[in-house]
Amino acid sequence: MKAWREECGVFGIWGDPEASRLTYLGLYAMQHRGQESAGIVSLQEREHIHHKGLGLVGDVFDENSLDRLKGNAAVGHVRYSTTGQNLLTNAQPLTAQLLNGPIALAHNGNIVNHQILKDSLKKSGSIFHGTNDTEILLHLLSKNPSNDLILALQESVAKIQGAFSFVILSHDKLVAVRDPWGFRPLVLGRKKGAVILASETCAFDLIGADYEREIEPGEIFWVDEQGEHSVRFQNEEKAVQKKSQCIFEHIYFARPDSLVFSRSVYQTRKAFGAMLARESGVEADVVIPVPDSGVPAALGYSFESRIPYELGIIRNHYVGRTFIQPAQNVRDFGVKIKLNPQSAVLSGQRVVVIDDSLVRGTTSKKIVNLIRQAGAKEVHMRIACPPTIGPCYYGVDTPEKDQLIAANHSIEKIREFIGADSLAYLSTEGLFKAIQSNEQNFCAACFTGHYPTELFGLNLPQSSSKSKR
Amino acid sequence: MKAWREECGVFGIWGDPEASRLTYLGLYAMQHRGQESAGIVSLQEREHIHHKGLGLVGDVFDENSLDRLKGNAAVGHVRYSTTGQNLLTNAQPLTAQLLNGPIALAHNGNIVNHQILKDSLKKSGSIFHGTNDTEILLHLLSKNPSNDLILALQESVAKIQGAFSFVILSHDKLVAVRDPWGFRPLVLGRKKGAVILASETCAFDLIGADYEREIEPGEIFWVDEQGEHSVRFQNEEKAVQKKSQCIFEHIYFARPDSLVFSRSVYQTRKAFGAMLARESGVEADVVIPVPDSGVPAALGYSFESRIPYELGIIRNHYVGRTFIQPAQNVRDFGVKIKLNPQSAVLSGQRVVVIDDSLVRGTTSKKIVNLIRQAGAKEVHMRIACPPTIGPCYYGVDTPEKDQLIAANHSIEKIREFIGADSLAYLSTEGLFKAIQSNEQNFCAACFTGHYPTELFGLNLPQSSSKSKR
Amino acid sequence: MKAWREECGVFGIWGDPEASRLTYLGLYAMQHRGQESAGIVSLQEREHIHHKGLGLVGDVFDENSLDRLKGNAAVGHVRYSTTGQNLLTNAQPLTAQLLNGPIALAHNGNIVNHQILKDSLKKSGSIFHGTNDTEILLHLLSKNPSNDLILALQESVAKIQGAFSFVILSHDKLVAVRDPWGFRPLVLGRKKGAVILASETCAFDLIGADYEREIEPGEIFWVDEQGEHSVRFQNEEKAVQKKSQCIFEHIYFARPDSLVFSRSVYQTRKAFGAMLARESGVEADVVIPVPDSGVPAALGYSFESRIPYELGIIRNHYVGRTFIQPAQNVRDFGVKIKLNPQSAVLSGQRVVVIDDSLVRGTTSKKIVNLIRQAGAKEVHMRIACPPTIGPCYYGVDTPEKDQLIAANHSIEKIREFIGADSLAYLSTEGLFKAIQSNEQNFCAACFTGHYPTELFGLNLPQSSSKSKR
Amino acid sequence: MKAWREECGVFGIWGDPEASRLTYLGLYAMQHRGQESAGIVSLQEREHIHHKGLGLVGDVFDENSLDRLKGNAAVGHVRYSTTGQNLLTNAQPLTAQLLNGPIALAHNGNIVNHQILKDSLKKSGSIFHGTNDTEILLHLLSKNPSNDLILALQESVAKIQGAFSFVILSHDKLVAVRDPWGFRPLVLGRKKGAVILASETCAFDLIGADYEREIEPGEIFWVDEQGEHSVRFQNEEKAVQKKSQCIFEHIYFARPDSLVFSRSVYQTRKAFGAMLARESGVEADVVIPVPDSGVPAALGYSFESRIPYELGIIRNHYVGRTFIQPAQNVRDFGVKIKLNPQSAVLSGQRVVVIDDSLVRGTTSKKIVNLIRQAGAKEVHMRIACPPTIGPCYYGVDTPEKDQLIAANHSIEKIREFIGADSLAYLSTEGLFKAIQSNEQNFCAACFTGHYPTELFGLNLPQSSSKSKR
Repeated sequence: MKAWREECGVFGIWGDPEASRLTYLGLYAMQHRGQESAGIVSLQEREHIHHKGLGLVGDVFDENSLDRLKGNAAVGHVRYSTTGQNLLTNAQPLTAQLLNGPIALAHNGNIVNHQILKDSLKKSGSIFHGTNDTEILLHLLSKNPSNDLILALQESVAKIQGAFSFVILSHDKLVAVRDPWGFRPLVLGRKKGAVILASETCAFDLIGADYEREIEPGEIFWVDEQGEHSVRFQNEEKAVQKKSQCIFEHIYFARPDSLVFSRSVYQTRKAFGAMLARESGVEADVVIPVPDSGVPAALGYSFESRIPYELGIIRNHYVGRTFIQPAQNVRDFGVKIKLNPQSAVLSGQRVVVIDDSLVRGTTSKKIVNLIRQAGAKEVHMRIACPPTIGPCYYGVDTPEKDQLIAANHSIEKIREFIGADSLAYLSTEGLFKAIQSNEQNFCAACFTGHYPTELFGLNLPQSSSKSKR
Repeated sequence: MKAWREECGVFGIWGDPEASRLTYLGLYAMQHRGQESAGIVSLQEREHIHHKGLGLVGDVFDENSLDRLKGNAAVGHVRYSTTGQNLLTNAQPLTAQLLNGPIALAHNGNIVNHQILKDSLKKSGSIFHGTNDTEILLHLLSKNPSNDLILALQESVAKIQGAFSFVILSHDKLVAVRDPWGFRPLVLGRKKGAVILASETCAFDLIGADYEREIEPGEIFWVDEQGEHSVRFQNEEKAVQKKSQCIFEHIYFARPDSLVFSRSVYQTRKAFGAMLARESGVEADVVIPVPDSGVPAALGYSFESRIPYELGIIRNHYVGRTFIQPAQNVRDFGVKIKLNPQSAVLSGQRVVVIDDSLVRGTTSKKIVNLIRQAGAKEVHMRIACPPTIGPCYYGVDTPEKDQLIAANHSIEKIREFIGADSLAYLSTEGLFKAIQSNEQNFCAACFTGHYPTELFGLNLPQSSSKSKR
Repeated sequence: MKAWREECGVFGIWGDPEASRLTYLGLYAMQHRGQESAGIVSLQEREHIHHKGLGLVGDVFDENSLDRLKGNAAVGHVRYSTTGQNLLTNAQPLTAQLLNGPIALAHNGNIVNHQILKDSLKKSGSIFHGTNDTEILLHLLSKNPSNDLILALQESVAKIQGAFSFVILSHDKLVAVRDPWGFRPLVLGRKKGAVILASETCAFDLIGADYEREIEPGEIFWVDEQGEHSVRFQNEEKAVQKKSQCIFEHIYFARPDSLVFSRSVYQTRKAFGAMLARESGVEADVVIPVPDSGVPAALGYSFESRIPYELGIIRNHYVGRTFIQPAQNVRDFGVKIKLNPQSAVLSGQRVVVIDDSLVRGTTSKKIVNLIRQAGAKEVHMRIACPPTIGPCYYGVDTPEKDQLIAANHSIEKIREFIGADSLAYLSTEGLFKAIQSNEQNFCAACFTGHYPTELFGLNLPQSSSKSKR
Repeated sequence: MKAWREECGVFGIWGDPEASRLTYLGLYAMQHRGQESAGIVSLQEREHIHHKGLGLVGDVFDENSLDRLKGNAAVGHVRYSTTGQNLLTNAQPLTAQLLNGPIALAHNGNIVNHQILKDSLKKSGSIFHGTNDTEILLHLLSKNPSNDLILALQESVAKIQGAFSFVILSHDKLVAVRDPWGFRPLVLGRKKGAVILASETCAFDLIGADYEREIEPGEIFWVDEQGEHSVRFQNEEKAVQKKSQCIFEHIYFARPDSLVFSRSVYQTRKAFGAMLARESGVEADVVIPVPDSGVPAALGYSFESRIPYELGIIRNHYVGRTFIQPAQNVRDFGVKIKLNPQSAVLSGQRVVVIDDSLVRGTTSKKIVNLIRQAGAKEVHMRIACPPTIGPCYYGVDTPEKDQLIAANHSIEKIREFIGADSLAYLSTEGLFKAIQSNEQNFCAACFTGHYPTELFGLNLPQSSSKSKR
C-alpha cells in the first residue's frame, strides 16, 4: 500500500559459532526494510557458503539451510526488489570468486553515477548479470590490482557517488563501509566478543547484542583475526560535503523501536506529531492514527493537543502477500482488507486522522471515505512530514515526480481530492525543530528538492535510469 | 503465545452470485478465531461443492478453488485445531450425503454431553470418522425420520447440551442455530438482498454488509427460496436457563472492531481498563500495553488514570507460524521475537503494563523481565480481567486447571513469580460494572467456577474427555 | 492414453517391524493399478495410524510420514480415481472407529448392488461421506450386532454382490476377503514369518517375499496373534456360480512380471500374440509393438510368424503427469509426446503393429498415422484380444458402450477409421486356447456381453450409476 | 544407476511465434541428456527474457513461465549437474549484458584448457560466479574489442580447446558453434521457415521439424534477419586434427530414435549386438537385455545368434527421483526397485544378458545375482562395447580411473566379481566394424586411452580439476 519503500537491510557478524542463525534473526528483525528476497553468506575455513531466495526471511531459510551455513562469520541482506524477471539474480549478498578468494557484498543505498561506471566497466570487458548497481563495486574490486582488500576498497569507493552502506565478507575479514554523506544508517554492536553490524538497532535487540555506535560517514571499519580497524576513505573534496542522513528513515522506514542516527525513532515520530499539533491544531473529538505507521505521531499529536487518542481504525495483521479479490461489488476493497474504521469510535465525531506521509493520495482518499462511512462528522487529515515533491535517488523506491501529488498540486487541491474537511502537513522548519537538528545534517531532498549530490542525469525525464524501478 | 484460544469462526451467505468469494473474505476477517484449517462449501443446483485445507484462509484457497466453488449460497469455517494426526478429517464444514441431499455443517462451540451421545450413536451403528463433537449433529439428523430438515434439527438439538452456534447449508436452505444459553456469538447481516451469517460483525464490515441483529439464544433461523423464517427450539426446562454469553469474547477473543452480543468490543475493553485504573491505581510515569490485545484496556487505563499512554513494547508483525530458534544463547527468545520493549520509552520510568488476561504466567514473567532490562524503575502489572481459575468447556481451548496459575496460587505468589513490583486483576464486580450488565447475562465460569450447564464428567480429572485438546 | 483403467491395488502385512515401509514398497510395485491416490494404515498397540494423499506413492509418502506409521502390521491401497471434487474423501484405506476399535478397509473391485444397499443404509440413518461403494462394507460391519469381526464380515459380505478383494486391518487382525466369483486377484505370500497379501505377485518380488497361493474365491483368510485361519463364506446359491476371473488382468492391467490367477502374465501375453499370428498372419517385414504394453504380444507374434521384431516406436518415459501443450501447430501431439516412430526402422517396410487392445480407436488412428509418416509402406494393426463390446461393472473404469468402437462398428469400419491396411483381433476362442483354459473360469463380459452377475440396473442407459466415473 | 552420464542438451530456434514452447518440447525430448536443471531464454524486441530452475523440464516450466517467455527466438538447455551448493548458479543458458546487448549461452561439452583461461581472465579482473567452464566464453566475448559478435566468437573460440557445441542467442541472432573435433553432436532442422538447432534429432521429431544436416566440426552457423550464414573458424593447425565424434553417444547417451553423426542410434546399437554375437557367441536358451538401454543390442545379438529374445527383466518406470529405502532387510534393493527378473522366463534357462556398457561392475554384479535368484541355470554377460579404461574429459561425467573396473582388472577378474558364468566385451575392432567407420572419425579415448587433444593436466592425479564433478 505504501508508495515509498526502503530498498534494503544489511547485517554482518564476526566471531560467533552461531553466526548464520544470528544473521537470520537480525534479518528477521529488519524484515520491514525488504520483503522480496533474503540471503546469507557464511565464512568457514576461508570459503563461503551461501543461501539466497525470494520471499520473506522465514520462507527463504529453514533448519537445513541454516545448518549448512556453518562458520563463525556471516553477512546477510533483505531486499525490496522491483517487479520483473530477474529477481533472484539481483538478490544479495552478491558473491564472486576473486583472485584472492571469495567475496560477498550486501548493499543498502543507490549509486548515483552507476550508469557512467557501468558503461566504462562494460567497455573494458566486465560482464553484468543483474540490473542492480551493487555489481559495480564487485567489478571495481576485481579490477583493482592490489591484493589488499582494504586498499582496493578505498580506491574503489572513491569512484562511486551516492548512498551506500556496505557490509562485506571476504575470506578473512568482515568490513563495513558507509558513504561520506551518511545517507543510510549502519550501526555497530557487540555480543559476547562478537562484532555485529546492522542497518538498525532493532536487530541487536532481538539477538541480545549491545549497541555501541554508528559507523561514521566516510568510514571503513573492519574486523579480522588481528582485531578491529578503522580508516576514513573520503577524499578532501567529499570531506567538505555536508552530512545527509535520510530523514525518511525517521518518518517512515525504520522500526519505531530502533535508534537511527543515534535517535529514538519512536520519540522522533512522537515529536513530529506534537509539532504538527502545534502548527496545525484543530477543534476535534478524537485523534486516530492510520495504523501502524501513524501511531507514534498520533500519540504525539494527542499529547500536545489534549484531544483523546483512539484506535479508530483496526488493522488486520493476517493479511498475506497474495489476496484474492472479489470479482466485483466490494468498494475500496484494497484498503478495507487491511484497515477497518469502527463506528463505535468514530460515529458522530470530529476526527483528526494522522498519517506518517502522503505520496500519491489515493490511499488517503479511501481512508477518509471509510472514516466518513463509519459516521464521522468531520475528518481532518494531518500528515507528520512536509509535502513530498521529489523522488529519492539514494536507495528508496519512489514514484516518478508526476505521481507525487504534492509536486503537482496545491494543498487545497489535495484536500479536495482526498475529501477531507481540512488537510495540513508538518512544515520543513517544524520537522527539523522537532528532530532538534538543522537541515545541514539530513537529506530532505524529497521535501526540498535540494539533492546533496550530483544526479548524473537520474532526474532527467528522458533518462531510462529509473527503469529498474 | 496465548494460552486461551478460540476454537472456531462460522460464516454463511444466501443469495449472492459471489457467495464463495464473500465467504472467503468473511473467513479472512475472522482468521483470529481459528488458524489451523479453513473450509467453504457452496451450493449450486442443489448440489454441494467443497474445498477444505489446513492452514490460513489465504493459503487454503486460491483463484482456482474459489472459481470451482460456484453458486449463490455458501457456508464457511475457520478452526483452531488440536495437534495429532487427523487434522484434515476434523476440518469443517463437515459434509455428508443424507437421504434428502447434501448437508454441510459449520460449528462454533462444544457439546458437553458428547460422550454419552457418541456412545449411544455408535451402539446403533453410526460410524465416527473424526474426533470432533460436531459429527454428532450429523448423525442425529441422519437418524431422524423426518424429511423436514427444520423439524429434524429441532428434535436433534434438543438432545445436545452445551455451546453451539451452527451454520448449516442443505440442498435448499441456509440455517443458523444458536444454543439456548447463547454461549457463542452469531450475527445476521444483509448485503443487497443477500442474507449473511457470521460469528462477528467484522466479517460484515469487510464485505460491505450491514449488521441487522444477533441470532437469539434458542433460535433456529433459516432462509430458502420462500424467504426467511425463525422458530425457537428450546423446551420449557431450557427456557428458564439464564443467558450465558461468553465474557471472554469481550476480554480477548473477538476483534476489537466487532460488535459482540450487541456491544463494541473495543469500547468494552477500554471500560475494563478504566475500571481497572479505578480499582487498582498506582503512581507511575507511563502506561503501556502488551500489544496488540492489551491496547484498548491500556488506553482506558491511561484515560482514567491520566498517566500517559506509550507504545513501550513494539510488536513485530512479520513473525510467521514457523520460526527457527537459535541453538542457544538468546534468552527469552520466544517472547522477544514478537515483542521488543524499548529503552527510549521505559528507561528510568515507573511503568504500568496492561495485559488482557494472565493464564499460566510464564509469558508475563518474560515480559516483566524484558521491561526491566529496558531500564524500567518499577513494573506494575495490571490484568484487565479477573483471575482465571477454571477451564472452559464451551468451545475454548484452555489449559487444564493445574496449569491455571490463579487456580493454584495467591495473587502475591503470582506477583512474585512474574517478578512485578505490583500485580492487580480486575474484580468480577468491576468486570460486570464496566460492561454495564449483571452476571446473569454472561458465562464467567472461568473466573467464578459456576458452570451454567451440567458438565457430564468433563471436569473430572480421570476423564479423558479433554484428550481431544 | 489408455481408455481401460484398473481402479485399485491392495496390500496387507502382518508381523514385520517395518510393516509400513514394506507396504510402501508393495504399493510402489503396484503403482500401475492406481495412480491418483495412495494410503497406508498401520497398527500399533491396537490403535491405527494413517496417512493418505493424492498422487503417486512416491509423492504421498516421505520419511516423516513413514516414520509415523509405526507398528508390525499395515494395510495399503493405490487407487485410480475419478475426476471431480472429492478425491481425498474417496482415497483408501477407508477408516472408522467402530465400537470394538478402529478398522481400515482396502478394496479392489466394484459392488454391483451398491445403490440398493446404500439407499437402505441411508434410510436407517447411515451417513455416506464419499461417492465410493466401499463405505457400504463399513456401514454393514458397524450395524452388525456381533462383536466378532469375522462373523460380522461373513454376514456382511453375504449381502454384497460383485467384485471385491478386500484387505482389512482391525485392532487385532489382518483379514483378506475375495468374492465368490474371484473377479479380482488377491495373493498370499510370506517373508521371514510375516504374512503378506497383495493384488499382484510383483509386490512380493520387490520386498523379497515368497508367493504361496491365491486367496480363493469365497474365502475369508485372517491372521492374528493366535495364528492363521480360513473360512468360506459363500452361501449355497453363490457356490454354484462359475469362477469369473477378469481376463483383462492378463490382457492389459497386471504387470507382465506378475503371476495372476497362478499364471505368468508375460507368458500369457506372448501366447496371445502367437495365437494372433496363427489366426491372422500377414506378409510383412517387421513386427513392432505399441510400447510398453504391446511388447510381449509382439514378441509372441514375431516368434510364431518368424517376422523380425523391432522397436519401431520409441517411448519417452520422462513424460510426467502434467504437460504443457503448444498452443497450435503440432499434430498428434498427445501421442507423439510419448511415442516416436522411427524412420530408420520403418521406412519402406511392411509393418505389423501389435497392441494389447483397442477401445475407442482414436489413439490407434494416431499411431497408424505416425507409422505411415515414418515411411512405412503398409501398416497392419493386430490386436491381442477380441473386440471390446461391453463396459466393465467389476472394478474397471471403462468408457460407456457408445464409445466402444467395436460395440458399434464392424471391423472393416474400424480399419477404415484407424487408416490401417488391415486390422485383425484375436478371436474369443483363440484367447481361451492361448490361456489354456475354458471360458468357464474367466469373466470375459467385455468381449462377450455375458455378465456373470445380475447388474442391478448398472447397464441401463437411464441409470446415473455410472456418474461416479 | 548409470555411472557414465551425459552432461547437457542444447536447443535453439529462430523464427516461430511459439519459440519458447517449442524449445520446451525440444528440451523435453532431450531430457535424457540432463535432468538436474533446465532453462530457456527467449528474445523479444532485442531484449531477453529467461527462466531457469532445478529439476526436470516438466517441473521447471509451467504455463505462466512459458507465457512470459515471449518472442520468436529462443535458446534452451538441460543439464546434468554435480552435487554441491551452487546448482542454480551453474544452470544454463548463462546470460549476461554485454555492451551490445544481452547474450545467452547454452553449452554441451567441456573446455579442457579451462583452468589456464580462467586464471588469466581472473588476473585481468574478470569475475566468475559459478564453477562451470562455460563462463569462460562469456568473458572472452566480453573482453573482445569487436562489435561484431561473429568476429568476436571466431577469435574467442580459437582460444579454447576441447568439446563444445554452443547455441548462442544475442539481441539479433541465433548462433551455433561446434568444436573442430566435433566431439558432441549438433544438428540443424527446419519447421515452416523456422530454423532449429538441437543436440539430437529426437527433438525435431517431437515438434514436427525436419532434419537437414549436422553443424560441421569447426563451423559457426548463424541466422538473423538477413538470413542464414556459415563460416569455418578453425585455424590451420586445428584443421588437420582428426574428427573425434564421441562414440559413447551411440553406445549409451543418445536416444535410440535419434540420428547422431548422421547414423541411426538404434540401428548402430543393433549392429553392436550382432557383432558381439559373432565375436562372443555362446550356447544359450534366451537372450535378455538389461532394460531399457540394452534392448537394441540384445535384439541384434538375438537376430545374429538365433537365440530367442525375451524380456527376462521387467523395468518399473514409475520409479521417481527420490525413493525411501526400507531400513534393512531388502537385499539388492537399489536395483530391484527398477528391475525385476522374472522366473517365468528365466527359470532353468541358460541366459545371455546384454548390457550397453560396464563401468564399475557393481550394478552388473547385482543383476547377475538377481537373474540367478530367478532360477537361471547359467548367466552369460555380454557387453556391447569395449572395456572402459579411461575417464572422459569432453563433457561426460565419469568416475575417476581407479573406479573403472576394466582399467584395473582383467576380464576374468571382472567375470569373477560380477559372478557370471562367462563375460565378453565387444572388441574395439568390432565396434568400428559395426559402425562401418574407422577409428579416425571417432573419439574412443575411454576405450583406447588415446585422447585427441592435450589434456592440460586434467588427467594428473594431483589435479583438482575433476572437483567440479
